[in-house]
Amino acid sequence: MKQIEEKILREGVILPGDILKVGSFLNQNIDTGLLSTMGAEIARLFDGYGVTKILTIEASGIAIAAAAGMSMGVPVLFAKKHKTSNVDGSVYSTVVHSFTHNEDYHVVISRDYLRDDDKVLLVDDFLASGRALRGLMDLCDQAGATVAGIAIAIEKCFTGAGDELRAQGVKLESLAMIESMAEGRITFRP
Amino acid sequence: MKQIEEKILREGVILPGDILKVGSFLNQNIDTGLLSTMGAEIARLFDGYGVTKILTIEASGIAIAAAAGMSMGVPVLFAKKHKTSNVDGSVYSTVVHSFTHNEDYHVVISRDYLRDDDKVLLVDDFLASGRALRGLMDLCDQAGATVAGIAIAIEKCFTGAGDELRAQGVKLESLAMIESMAEGRITFRP
Repeated sequence: MKQIEEKILREGVILPGDILKVGSFLNQNIDTGLLSTMGAEIARLFDGYGVTKILTIEASGIAIAAAAGMSMGVPVLFAKKHKTSNVDGSVYSTVVHSFTHNEDYHVVISRDYLRDDDKVLLVDDFLASGRALRGLMDLCDQAGATVAGIAIAIEKCFTGAGDELRAQGVKLESLAMIESMAEGRITFRP
Repeated sequence: MKQIEEKILREGVILPGDILKVGSFLNQNIDTGLLSTMGAEIARLFDGYGVTKILTIEASGIAIAAAAGMSMGVPVLFAKKHKTSNVDGSVYSTVVHSFTHNEDYHVVISRDYLRDDDKVLLVDDFLASGRALRGLMDLCDQAGATVAGIAIAIEKCFTGAGDELRAQGVKLESLAMIESMAEGRITFRP
């Protein structure tokens, strides 16, 4: 999506460790015009896939998921992160490792909100290692729900995690696909 | 707003300690039709107030703030919660006490994203003790920004915190105003 690529080139800041800071428009301060366009584009990409629910993870996936959910007319469910495993039988829970903070956290949703007849679109702001997404897929598995596909704002293609999911047959659509961030220069996959 | 009141009566669950659980439609699973309507209603209520930015707090305020921001055509900024005070000079920070978890947390925004000429609309899902809102007002003060008003999905009027803010001259609009939750029965302020 040209609009998000231009925004990344204009406002994105590359930090050591291949971190791309997009807090000025995506995951702390949110450009709501861009957000609307992203929601509509995700709705277009997954039109006809029978999506019944969007699943994301707090906190920075929520706004994108909400925009997509309003465009698609489906509910949005967000998984919560906990540092401890104080979970009971009322939830589905999985463990995800965060490279950014170098720690494990528990990702939890209530059993009440995901059903075995749901066709779920996973939405997140970034796809890098793919571990958060694998966690969400695990939660869907536990619920017996089907993963209809994945929509991502910004994919770091150079990690290979996105292409691995595609090779497994997952319909994965990323609105901006970063092929390389080497030497402070961002290039997109055409 | 009739639509949210009806939803609270139909799906809200009252838990001990005057906790109202609305996870089925507002703060874990999100009814995006209701969310759109709430965003449009907040935009209507604050039309003409010169709002330049919406400020909310992660995680459950984000979807409502995003819906309102898209309706109003203004950016949304969300404050982050930290348990430790690992903050540096690049942020505004304040401390908020959570009754739910009985602990203090630090609420932080980057200095880059709030300016002294901003007119800020604060948005959150619940107003109970008002402490989170006071924290956001403190962050606006630190930035020299003006608080244009506050929009809340559900106000627990019986705490008195909302009326205290109104008495101080704050334009506070709540889409559902719960007068009482005594004996398992919810009554709204007319």
